[in-house]
Amino acid sequence: MSAKHNLLIDIPTAIPDEIFETIISTQNVKIERIISKGHKSESDFWYDQHQSEWILVIKGEARLQFEDKTIHLSTGDYLTIAPHQKHRVDWTTPEEETIWLAVFY
Amino acid sequence: MSAKHNLLIDIPTAIPDEIFETIISTQNVKIERIISKGHKSESDFWYDQHQSEWILVIKGEARLQFEDKTIHLSTGDYLTIAPHQKHRVDWTTPEEETIWLAVFY
Repeated sequence: MSAKHNLLIDIPTAIPDEIFETIISTQNVKIERIISKGHKSESDFWYDQHQSEWILVIKGEARLQFEDKTIHLSTGDYLTIAPHQKHRVDWTTPEEETIWLAVFY
Repeated sequence: MSAKHNLLIDIPTAIPDEIFETIISTQNVKIERIISKGHKSESDFWYDQHQSEWILVIKGEARLQFEDKTIHLSTGDYLTIAPHQKHRVDWTTPEEETIWLAVFY
């Protein structure tokens, strides 16, 4: 309890697949760290989630696509994705790791 | 829905009191941005909360005091505070704004 950890460290040097790490998981909320580096969703893949998702870019750069728009995100940007609001990761920068914080609730 | 905002901007130039801004608030979860600049809890004040709190330092530097230890936090550091785990802010750097992200759940 109350041990500190750091979101910016323990990043593998090679990231063949996007990394999803659960930080907190309870019945009502899940907090996840996601690490991307040039990864994007398959071209015909859409996330369709039953929970709300609050997503924050801690570091890096990405583009999230929705059915009606595409939103560019850089360090510090956040947005809320409503339940069943379809979305996909259109692009993440290949230049550096993009570290996301996702809160599902 | 899905409008983006940024955690690192809209910081007032003068911060006489700590700033608490609610980003998300539902029955089960609250996400808050807190901005400190040299602020600390009153010397005899302890937070004693019924919810769990996950706290992340987005930027800056701080010290959180618990009954049995004091933990120094800098950019990227996070920890979980259990319900009713008494704590206080022992110190935040006066040199720059400390931006916290707090998730109560």
